[in-house]
Amino acid sequence: MSNISEIIFQPEGKRCKAIHGITILDAAKLVGIDLTSICGGQTLCGKCKVIVEKGRNNLSKRTETEKKLLSKNEVNKDYRLACVATINGNLIVTIPSESRRGRQRLQVEGIETPVNIETLAKKLTLTLPKPSLEDQTADLERLLRILKQYGLNELEIGYDLLRKLPTHLRNSNWTITVTIWNDYEIIDIESAVMPESYGFAVDIGTTKIAGYLMELKTGKLLGKGALMNPQIPFGEDVISRSSYAIEYPNGLRELQKTVIQGINQILANECKKAAISHSHVYETTIVGNTAMHHLFLGISPKSISVSPYVPAIQKSINIQASKLGLKMNPNGYVHVLPVVAGFVGADCIADVLATEIYKSNKLCFMIDIGTNTEVVIGTKERLTAASCASGPAFEGAHIRHGMRAQTGAIEKIWIDPETLDPTYLTIDNAKPRGICGSAIVDAIAEMLKTGIIDTSGKISLDLETPRIRKNPDELEYVLVWKKEATTEEDIVLLQSDIQEIQKAKAAIYTGASLLMKKLNISPKDISKAFIAGAFGTYIDPTNAKTIGMFPDMTNETIQVGNAAGTGARMTLLSKEAKKKAEEIQKMIRYLELATDPDFQKEFISALYFPHLDLNRFPNIVKALKETQFRVGGSHKTILEGIKKIKWNHV
Amino acid sequence: MSNISEIIFQPEGKRCKAIHGITILDAAKLVGIDLTSICGGQTLCGKCKVIVEKGRNNLSKRTETEKKLLSKNEVNKDYRLACVATINGNLIVTIPSESRRGRQRLQVEGIETPVNIETLAKKLTLTLPKPSLEDQTADLERLLRILKQYGLNELEIGYDLLRKLPTHLRNSNWTITVTIWNDYEIIDIESAVMPESYGFAVDIGTTKIAGYLMELKTGKLLGKGALMNPQIPFGEDVISRSSYAIEYPNGLRELQKTVIQGINQILANECKKAAISHSHVYETTIVGNTAMHHLFLGISPKSISVSPYVPAIQKSINIQASKLGLKMNPNGYVHVLPVVAGFVGADCIADVLATEIYKSNKLCFMIDIGTNTEVVIGTKERLTAASCASGPAFEGAHIRHGMRAQTGAIEKIWIDPETLDPTYLTIDNAKPRGICGSAIVDAIAEMLKTGIIDTSGKISLDLETPRIRKNPDELEYVLVWKKEATTEEDIVLLQSDIQEIQKAKAAIYTGASLLMKKLNISPKDISKAFIAGAFGTYIDPTNAKTIGMFPDMTNETIQVGNAAGTGARMTLLSKEAKKKAEEIQKMIRYLELATDPDFQKEFISALYFPHLDLNRFPNIVKALKETQFRVGGSHKTILEGIKKIKWNHV
Repeated sequence: MSNISEIIFQPEGKRCKAIHGITILDAAKLVGIDLTSICGGQTLCGKCKVIVEKGRNNLSKRTETEKKLLSKNEVNKDYRLACVATINGNLIVTIPSESRRGRQRLQVEGIETPVNIETLAKKLTLTLPKPSLEDQTADLERLLRILKQYGLNELEIGYDLLRKLPTHLRNSNWTITVTIWNDYEIIDIESAVMPESYGFAVDIGTTKIAGYLMELKTGKLLGKGALMNPQIPFGEDVISRSSYAIEYPNGLRELQKTVIQGINQILANECKKAAISHSHVYETTIVGNTAMHHLFLGISPKSISVSPYVPAIQKSINIQASKLGLKMNPNGYVHVLPVVAGFVGADCIADVLATEIYKSNKLCFMIDIGTNTEVVIGTKERLTAASCASGPAFEGAHIRHGMRAQTGAIEKIWIDPETLDPTYLTIDNAKPRGICGSAIVDAIAEMLKTGIIDTSGKISLDLETPRIRKNPDELEYVLVWKKEATTEEDIVLLQSDIQEIQKAKAAIYTGASLLMKKLNISPKDISKAFIAGAFGTYIDPTNAKTIGMFPDMTNETIQVGNAAGTGARMTLLSKEAKKKAEEIQKMIRYLELATDPDFQKEFISALYFPHLDLNRFPNIVKALKETQFRVGGSHKTILEGIKKIKWNHV
Repeated sequence: MSNISEIIFQPEGKRCKAIHGITILDAAKLVGIDLTSICGGQTLCGKCKVIVEKGRNNLSKRTETEKKLLSKNEVNKDYRLACVATINGNLIVTIPSESRRGRQRLQVEGIETPVNIETLAKKLTLTLPKPSLEDQTADLERLLRILKQYGLNELEIGYDLLRKLPTHLRNSNWTITVTIWNDYEIIDIESAVMPESYGFAVDIGTTKIAGYLMELKTGKLLGKGALMNPQIPFGEDVISRSSYAIEYPNGLRELQKTVIQGINQILANECKKAAISHSHVYETTIVGNTAMHHLFLGISPKSISVSPYVPAIQKSINIQASKLGLKMNPNGYVHVLPVVAGFVGADCIADVLATEIYKSNKLCFMIDIGTNTEVVIGTKERLTAASCASGPAFEGAHIRHGMRAQTGAIEKIWIDPETLDPTYLTIDNAKPRGICGSAIVDAIAEMLKTGIIDTSGKISLDLETPRIRKNPDELEYVLVWKKEATTEEDIVLLQSDIQEIQKAKAAIYTGASLLMKKLNISPKDISKAFIAGAFGTYIDPTNAKTIGMFPDMTNETIQVGNAAGTGARMTLLSKEAKKKAEEIQKMIRYLELATDPDFQKEFISALYFPHLDLNRFPNIVKALKETQFRVGGSHKTILEGIKKIKWNHV
């Protein structure tokens, strides 16, 4: 019996021969069909749907994961997840439009904060005088003698380089290129004139890893790439992921290996695109929250998971790449930025570095929204930080039609208060395939303004519009009819999607407001607010405030994008920035909010849109009133007052 | 068919079951029979002879090695080499007395030169205040805070130790023992009060490796052990061994691995004997000639094998144990002492350190006799070194009845000028089994004085004594009759044995005399002579001069034993000694003698006893004259003049 079958992908009619046991996703890759797969084939995102037209019994059985990630309707229509279903016979499958990968908007951009370039790795090409019976000086001493002329004294050399030195010198006819680390150690010797010198800056997010390939000499960005954090299967948030590391034998090693593989994958991609050798990458800087920091270093996160939440190390550390298994120059260094506390990590220090709030005379507010959200408030005199577990909802996870910011993603929404019909923009102006984070915030703010939802988040059944309806399980609001979309069903926002957003935004608001309370300041005292994080780049700050995601500050709001990545890039290029990061670590005071007796009460109140206490959002309430006035008060709005939230699962 | 047979060892009648394919040597080890094996079962020394009484066909076929290492007589009597012959059936074998290992005189002793103990590894037991919500300082910073109170600032920590730090602190209830390296780096953390701290000093000889286990705090020697250098199968001398490393793929790696295994074996033995854990061994110091130094470090010896004989490195180097695979604390350091030149290595620097000739106001002469011999001449102002390839003859190799200084070895010989009968002393006053290095020198000097050999080394046939006779191949002098010995044959010195000694001593003398010539000094200018090396410990310096092993110096001669090992021990215990070694490296000027146009002529002249030019040995000639006068001139002696040496193989 043959173990090779034929797969035909429709509508293109592309054919491929597949060995039994591989997934449909693998087969699609073989013929160059680009299926959406946010999670990278880890059976997490449920976005790589395909429809089996023929041969449904020639696939592995439907798994629990598929049942969870596909709707009943989809199951009935023979949808399968391409990353789950393995092939054991001939097949014809159709790729629905929503499963096609479009051009992806790289959510790795961040503010550009200039630095004086002074990298730790430096290259020198040298020609050594040849030895003779009159000058029997040893190879290393011969090299060090020349380096002394460059003011480089008593350099160290790695043992493996010493081993290769005699051969290098003689193969190159005594002209070599030496890479010096921090005026202290020889980390590379090459048998030729070889000026190439690169670095890699990495931001390890709980959900996403972003990497930046830089030319060290010029500071030029050569490439940037991102990947879902491949640790996600071990736990979606830092708490569950840390538990895995603590409880499972080898769990810690496994998590470390996984994240390093992910980083290696981004680095390899970027090196390939830029056509450079990984052996010319001499430094990598790493930022990430403290749990990601510990897991990257293979340090048990146990002590940061239990009170008093103490990290293993706060200051930065340099580790030789070979010790970590990073696929760069093995003698190059990995510089891991310092962390503040168990829940305020190196990413936060990088944010502060990039936004330069540590230099500010006036009171600044900085928020980095991610799966874990950090808030920093202060001036150049003092900075105080807090943290909250916000979850991955704003990254599209757990939202029925949530997707990444790719071609066809709705990225902006307005709802007509008369017709209750939405107007939207999609990325690349393509037919809509789903909704990404920024538009989710818009949609909820607009639904609130138009009375589609009330302050408790509940979808109203009183409005006369076919867009509000009850599916077998729950209420939903139709954003896009199927006929306008490329999906096989209407694009909707479910009541449960709204609940996910409520929990996420309440966590973020609680962190920010409790911190302000402890510092005895109010939103109006803030002179500048920075919103960091890839998601923060694209949101409408007014809509974010309208749904009560963060306090009702009126002054300048600056969206700085992936500022953590910017900080990682800055420290890669600048010795001074490394020093600053160290100073910021010492400067930031951390406040533990999770143990605050007010936390639970604050959180529950913050589940409302924008908040149970409307006095906290005077500017938003004023704006909503104006809106209502303008539209003529034809619908129930926020001003009707607070509806009691009744959820079983909050 | 069974693949297990029974072996009976006679005369004890010990029995053992042996799996087919193992050697007789392995089987003997199984029942605790201690067979002599200088080479450690490497089929080199030919000393593990056994007699097959029954089952001669139940053994593997006689190999070329056996044919070479056994006499015809032994072959006829069914002698086999236990390390070569593998078992494939039942056997009865007898162990002849000469193959039994006696108490071995440890040839690792050296001069004791006091040092101020200041080791690089230091231990501190600390109790840290526990963290709290009020003091969330990270684990490492908490530890560093305490260490600061001890004046230890900005210590580095190994990445793997950082990983374990949180667990160590919490498991030990915050009382830990920290090992600090050179006031610079934390290299060990233990969850208890743990004051143990040890070091290991190693002298890698071409033929023998000696290791010394020391208590770092007190400087106490806990144990010492030696092993034939397991690299011997790859080449007996530095030239052939280096060729192997250069020519064979992986040859270098293989040689490095082999010597490290040997060192690990000695260390493991000594740790076991002293009942200490290898993880408490924090430093190893290494000395050895430059080829051994390069091979230990895995550096190709190619550049030191060809003109201009340049080493890869001259200064000392510290390498973390884990990088070399040394079975000590993996974060501990291996300190490899500096080398002078391609043929004057770290062993020579260690000799100079131990003899303190670098401090001397008067002219000193230092010779380290080994497979490679180094000579250093000078004062505290300047030291000059040279080197010569002397071979392993004085270590018993290539000498028919040569053996190590073990029980039953003849270690001292006098020959009666009248009767030509020898008187001898054996180690432990046991019945003689063979002759060791010191007695070989005695025997030749005595044979020369009594006319048994002439100045050309030729055994005289004119003397009437049954002790001088011709075996089928060559002349020989009987040292011990079989009946007085424990051997199965007379213990003899062959004409070819004498030729081996001539070549060895000529090489040594040539090195010393050419160096003196270049420095424009004569033997009488030397105020102190040091003889180093295990062999040098036991020789009679006058007899050595009588056979012309080194120049005819009359002043104080000090035998310092394994001074290289002493130097290794000194640098292990003392930071200052490490510094001194570095200074000595810079102080020593190396003279290349092998390329000297006079070398060949000098060497040929030095093949004579004591030398072709008797004017070079006025004191020896004078002494010989007195001897001759006393014995009445009844025999032909040295004074008859120089006989022309005629060898085919010189």
